[in-house]
Amino acid sequence: MKIVVIGGVAAGMSAAARARRLDEHAQIVVLERSAHVSFANCGLPYHIGGAIKERDDLLLQTPQSLKASLNLDVRTGHEVTAIDRAQKTVRIRELATGRDYAESYDKLVLAPGAQPLRPNLPGLDHPKIFILRNIADMDAVKAAVDGGAKSAIVIGGGYIGVEIAENFRDRGLAVDLVEMIDQIMPPLDPEMAWNLQQHMGEHGVKLHLGTAAAAFRDAGGRVTAELQNGEQLTADLVLLSAGVRPDVVLAKAAGIELGPRGGLKVDAHLRTNDPDIYAAGDAIEVAHTILPDSWVLPLAGPANRQGRIVAENICGRATSYTTTQGTAIVKIFQMTGGGTGATEKQLKRAGLPYQKVYIHPSGHASYYPGTGPMHVKLLFAPVTGKILGAQVVGSDGVDKRLDVFATALRAGLTVFELQHLELSYAPPFGSAKDAVNMAGFVASNLLQGDLQLWYAEDYPARTDGGVIVDVRGPKEFEQWHIPGALNIPLGKLRARLGELPRDKPVFVNCKVGFRSYLAYRLLRQHGFSAATLAGGANTFRAWHKDQIGATPPEPPFQAYARD
Amino acid sequence: MKIVVIGGVAAGMSAAARARRLDEHAQIVVLERSAHVSFANCGLPYHIGGAIKERDDLLLQTPQSLKASLNLDVRTGHEVTAIDRAQKTVRIRELATGRDYAESYDKLVLAPGAQPLRPNLPGLDHPKIFILRNIADMDAVKAAVDGGAKSAIVIGGGYIGVEIAENFRDRGLAVDLVEMIDQIMPPLDPEMAWNLQQHMGEHGVKLHLGTAAAAFRDAGGRVTAELQNGEQLTADLVLLSAGVRPDVVLAKAAGIELGPRGGLKVDAHLRTNDPDIYAAGDAIEVAHTILPDSWVLPLAGPANRQGRIVAENICGRATSYTTTQGTAIVKIFQMTGGGTGATEKQLKRAGLPYQKVYIHPSGHASYYPGTGPMHVKLLFAPVTGKILGAQVVGSDGVDKRLDVFATALRAGLTVFELQHLELSYAPPFGSAKDAVNMAGFVASNLLQGDLQLWYAEDYPARTDGGVIVDVRGPKEFEQWHIPGALNIPLGKLRARLGELPRDKPVFVNCKVGFRSYLAYRLLRQHGFSAATLAGGANTFRAWHKDQIGATPPEPPFQAYARD
Repeated sequence: MKIVVIGGVAAGMSAAARARRLDEHAQIVVLERSAHVSFANCGLPYHIGGAIKERDDLLLQTPQSLKASLNLDVRTGHEVTAIDRAQKTVRIRELATGRDYAESYDKLVLAPGAQPLRPNLPGLDHPKIFILRNIADMDAVKAAVDGGAKSAIVIGGGYIGVEIAENFRDRGLAVDLVEMIDQIMPPLDPEMAWNLQQHMGEHGVKLHLGTAAAAFRDAGGRVTAELQNGEQLTADLVLLSAGVRPDVVLAKAAGIELGPRGGLKVDAHLRTNDPDIYAAGDAIEVAHTILPDSWVLPLAGPANRQGRIVAENICGRATSYTTTQGTAIVKIFQMTGGGTGATEKQLKRAGLPYQKVYIHPSGHASYYPGTGPMHVKLLFAPVTGKILGAQVVGSDGVDKRLDVFATALRAGLTVFELQHLELSYAPPFGSAKDAVNMAGFVASNLLQGDLQLWYAEDYPARTDGGVIVDVRGPKEFEQWHIPGALNIPLGKLRARLGELPRDKPVFVNCKVGFRSYLAYRLLRQHGFSAATLAGGANTFRAWHKDQIGATPPEPPFQAYARD
Repeated sequence: MKIVVIGGVAAGMSAAARARRLDEHAQIVVLERSAHVSFANCGLPYHIGGAIKERDDLLLQTPQSLKASLNLDVRTGHEVTAIDRAQKTVRIRELATGRDYAESYDKLVLAPGAQPLRPNLPGLDHPKIFILRNIADMDAVKAAVDGGAKSAIVIGGGYIGVEIAENFRDRGLAVDLVEMIDQIMPPLDPEMAWNLQQHMGEHGVKLHLGTAAAAFRDAGGRVTAELQNGEQLTADLVLLSAGVRPDVVLAKAAGIELGPRGGLKVDAHLRTNDPDIYAAGDAIEVAHTILPDSWVLPLAGPANRQGRIVAENICGRATSYTTTQGTAIVKIFQMTGGGTGATEKQLKRAGLPYQKVYIHPSGHASYYPGTGPMHVKLLFAPVTGKILGAQVVGSDGVDKRLDVFATALRAGLTVFELQHLELSYAPPFGSAKDAVNMAGFVASNLLQGDLQLWYAEDYPARTDGGVIVDVRGPKEFEQWHIPGALNIPLGKLRARLGELPRDKPVFVNCKVGFRSYLAYRLLRQHGFSAATLAGGANTFRAWHKDQIGATPPEPPFQAYARD
């Protein structure tokens, strides 16, 4: 059997390697347009920034090493220009020599990846406007920084955009970041991205949200970007990271069917409409674990696993790829943020019913050093409590909670079951009631009717009909409170019930939602109509984009009673 | 309703707090023998060591704060001396005054916790022999260290023992640690504990394994410990952490039934044989998620969750506690180790069939700084692949992988499903194929017959019948190899097949098991009878307790092909 793989990075190399392991006798040819295969594309920003010192560390394999270990015929600098499905051949151009030749295949694997979006804007061909997709791109950007660039404009606030912004700052550049929508990190809901935005601001990244580049022009060798909001930014270089789209030109020309979102259409075995052609990675459309319709979700983990599955099917095993849940994470300076499953935005857009809770525990036991507040948003189905999505932003332990949520979501667990997860606890790592348990407690309380929530977005329209009671201490209240709120500290509440109205709702709030939950339980059992602010002032201020700089950190959590 | 809770730390305080939230009008009395409630008992070693600077940080609540927030009647320094089940009263002694009085209850909660084991040894009453269970113990140990102690003997190598050993080292003390069985951290299998033992040695803790203290005697104000192996150790203080047992004296005297392991016997609702008496925490026996019979598993997470469940049942909700899976973790200097589910030792003892794999990936992408090797052992059921247990030891990302395994185990996932978990990936956090996916790949390969393993324990009895082939490079081979092994580097193997016998088994090995897996696939498809060493030299040397100091770290993992 002769297998030809187009694309030699994540999905393509996984397919080739797995195919060899399953079939020692197959002929396996990997064709890669760029000069490198199997490079660490997620590491590119960090070599520019200096965290990864050695360029060679990113070059995980060479054609020679892959020949030796896996007997693969890997050809870098070879671009496939056409697929002849009838003849079962691909047309190839060797870029260095211009040589044009054909290669036959029994099975063809399409792993072309994605192409950066290049908006059709005036001046986009300026030599100081860069993209960052491969080693050559990285070399060019790094050369510009090493050459003395003092400032940069990053276009796009997704993963690559925020990572490169951080790395530019690490090199001392002044950084402006422009993002078309009103938040960075579109895979998060806006109130979750807000903490990351504040953090980027604290680290000197100037954000321009809700606007986009309209044009670029030369400014004496530098670049001026005109934004749609009229701002003019000038810098030594521009990094364009405005998103990607599936690279389907070759496949489309060969009559391979596309899906509704413009990616390659595949069945459960990752086979295209041609039974001898499979596809994997950033170019394909997949089913989403939670959302309807098909999706293009360019993520390294799924790409690698899809490559494996393609190889298994080619080698005669009927293995299925199920769904992608969109688990993703980003480090931004000292913070980390990410999500899994659906966001609230996506659930709304899809018309799926959901409920949500917010909690703000610390990453591990607050009395043990090295932790900070963590912001957790959990989305789940009404009644059944099935987990629909989770987002976590914080400093320590964020990746862990995301992965626990991701595993629970994949296993089809409910919020009720999150309560009972038995997670590892010692003070450096967590709390006896872990953040994931806590999210489960709060969500279960809500579904069981032990808790009524009001949300930041209910203010002021809904809260105008009642009274807002802030149950924090007077000092906290003085520093910041919701306009119009009455201050009755939790410890005084039982004695001061007479001050509260019985004919209209009482909207309770505190800092993170725990004291107000105690207040809620108390009020409700004394006959009041009450609700507690989901996520407390932390979520309220993130939602309303209020500055939090003036507020000192919440006093340490109280371990006994955080449920 | 009047609820009396005996014990005011994890389980007891969780029960009291949850009961208040569910019933604002109940009278809730908490009786705690020691001077503090709701203190951070897991933090005690770290205040002695100095990581937790402020003693007050460990005192999470006071009777006053609990009165204010939850209207609890908390009485510290009050010891319950008897339970009169017929009258439904408890007899109480106020320790400070000697006052003796009775308190009635409608529902009684037993959360007495565990008592440290004090072996009946000569000299155990020496004033420089300490235990560490509560704030007063901590104060005494810290005073001894602050007072100039230069050396310590720790008796017992479980969680507390290794944590206090680390904290004594942080204070500059010379530390000898004595553990009766032949490994530290009994909740791990010995070859997994071995890496931690090496690490403790590197940090100056002298281990005495497989022996126990036989007697203590005074040595001019210091303590000499005579060990069963004849060694004599002398130090300024001794910390006794030889394990705990359920504190059941009070309950037993009142006719509360015990289970076969000497803990309080409870039903699924955590009710004892007296319908008005519930129990939770370290004193009760629970069902194990994986193993037969009932177990005493003193863990903070389950204790807290049991406390909640007791309160729910008392307040009229039929909530069940299911099982405890024994998830636990410990930090030891720069390393972390822990496990969830059953160990191999336990599965053997229980006669349950299992299979196992080992992997040694890095904590995150090896090209991004700040990671180190991680050692993973996965135990699972033959055929079905149901996860039975997992152990992880390493530097970064250990707690995360443990919690993912713990969640997967609780959800009843199989190793096949571990392959498809979609976990968060960016270079600072993991790899595109996460360690958990990798463990799933290897285990699935094994169950599907794509991989045959041999194990460290097969050497030399089983391997004597074949030839051992080491497929690492010649330099690695030169530094260390299995005696009698032949060296054929993976890259040369296809050309040198003629050197291998076809009439007897070929036992392949490498450093961690990946290159030998490739070699295995190759050999098998060329008609050889082959097997690959599970976990490679890393596991082999841990099993055979070989020194690894001479071996440089494994070259970075190669991202494309680790499956």
